[in-house]
Amino acid sequence: MPRLFKRVTIAGVGLIGGSLALAARAAGLIGEVVGLGRGEDNLCTAQQRGIVDRYSHDPLDAARDADLLLVAVPVGAIADVVRACASALRPGAVVSDVGSVKEVVLRDVEAQLPAGLSFVGAHPIAGIEESGAAHAAADLFRGSRCILTPGRRAGADAVAKVRALWEGVGMRVDQMDAARHDDVLACVSHLPHALAFSAVNALLDADATFADFAGPSFRDLTRVAASSTEMWCDIFLANAAHVDRAITTFVAALEQLRHAIVRGDAAQIKERLERAQAARRQWSAARP
Amino acid sequence: MPRLFKRVTIAGVGLIGGSLALAARAAGLIGEVVGLGRGEDNLCTAQQRGIVDRYSHDPLDAARDADLLLVAVPVGAIADVVRACASALRPGAVVSDVGSVKEVVLRDVEAQLPAGLSFVGAHPIAGIEESGAAHAAADLFRGSRCILTPGRRAGADAVAKVRALWEGVGMRVDQMDAARHDDVLACVSHLPHALAFSAVNALLDADATFADFAGPSFRDLTRVAASSTEMWCDIFLANAAHVDRAITTFVAALEQLRHAIVRGDAAQIKERLERAQAARRQWSAARP
Repeated sequence: MPRLFKRVTIAGVGLIGGSLALAARAAGLIGEVVGLGRGEDNLCTAQQRGIVDRYSHDPLDAARDADLLLVAVPVGAIADVVRACASALRPGAVVSDVGSVKEVVLRDVEAQLPAGLSFVGAHPIAGIEESGAAHAAADLFRGSRCILTPGRRAGADAVAKVRALWEGVGMRVDQMDAARHDDVLACVSHLPHALAFSAVNALLDADATFADFAGPSFRDLTRVAASSTEMWCDIFLANAAHVDRAITTFVAALEQLRHAIVRGDAAQIKERLERAQAARRQWSAARP
Repeated sequence: MPRLFKRVTIAGVGLIGGSLALAARAAGLIGEVVGLGRGEDNLCTAQQRGIVDRYSHDPLDAARDADLLLVAVPVGAIADVVRACASALRPGAVVSDVGSVKEVVLRDVEAQLPAGLSFVGAHPIAGIEESGAAHAAADLFRGSRCILTPGRRAGADAVAKVRALWEGVGMRVDQMDAARHDDVLACVSHLPHALAFSAVNALLDADATFADFAGPSFRDLTRVAASSTEMWCDIFLANAAHVDRAITTFVAALEQLRHAIVRGDAAQIKERLERAQAARRQWSAARP
């Protein structure tokens, strides 16, 4: 595989940024890697693990002459990081991110991106509950999906290189517009997180002592309620309209089931459960 | 451990009934075991695996002279099985079940239980997605909780023996009245199932093709939507009032989060997420 980028600046050397650096270096896709961040301990760990060659706390220093700026910080901070780095990048450089929400980010980044730079948003749908460079792993992305949401001013060459980067670390890459991405993710990821957080809150509202009797169904339903609250607050705010719509769709489905239960309508309950069961089993069977 | 029951009839030799027979026999808690059921293949498997000594399709034959009738059939069928077996049981015998809903079952069973028999409801909170005697395992219950909901006419000796049975197969046993059991289980188990089924239905309502992009958060949230629809229809109907109330509590919690998101109220979102995260992490830390 030919080298795609000579010098990469990774802003936010956490689980995702760190894992991409490890995987892309192992595949020979990128050359020098410079880390940009605030946490000294985390950046030091990243350097010790060979994730970055060097690091800096200064955006202009870290981004100097890079031909790829990969912004792997919380969604609400992406545009600010791009603004702080842009003038130091090599002419024609590619700017990308790994955020879970794309439309707001695209709008904010493109509004202030200097001419000659291409913004190609990306969302690698992978992750674990741990965070930080210490947990980065070269195989984190293998077999999972990545969605690209290129900006309107992104060059075809820039899009192709970002696609090759994520494909090169083992992902299946799709491309769609940012609004559709945000609609899809609101349903398959942001809604599940909203439900998990709310299910725990509902149990506390009902009677916290009930938790003593909670078993595997509660455990799995609420697993992601242990996730980073800062990151999820950020995602919910950045994708508010789509999350609102996904919640509406969900509440309607739940109320249909509730009304069938309250009416004692066994046929209608069975119809609802069988539809869900069939789809869930099919979904599961299609996955390794 | 002294033998608790000389002859046990297990009505419904599935995962739970079969596992109890294996575990209780291994611990020397019970003597002869007779299976009662409809499915010839399943009963044959149970006999081959040493779960039952013999089996019958005839209630009076299967229950003859038993000092424990353990009814491990769907909630809606328990009272009918007790009615069909009661006259053949040994005088003073104990009748128990393993249903996930207790109040309706207790009312229906006690309404027609012959004098001299004790009904001691039990709910071993354990299980896997598989069902049938083929998947029964002696260690299924170890370390999990069991709730006893004895009838008002149950003798103290009968309650003590049923408690000793479940403790003897490794469960931590609590006792409470049936209405409280149903309230607790609505919150920690029946609601999670209603949410899982409804989350899959909501995804189908939004756009079935979105499922291609669903990852681990969707997978875990909806795992139990692959469960038996017959059993869950039965549970929702038998515990309708408590499930209705649990859904109301949940929807209120979800709407609080939704309104904070729509208002863009970061402080309120964080407060909701942090409350849930702390409780979920604490719950998780308290478990092996």
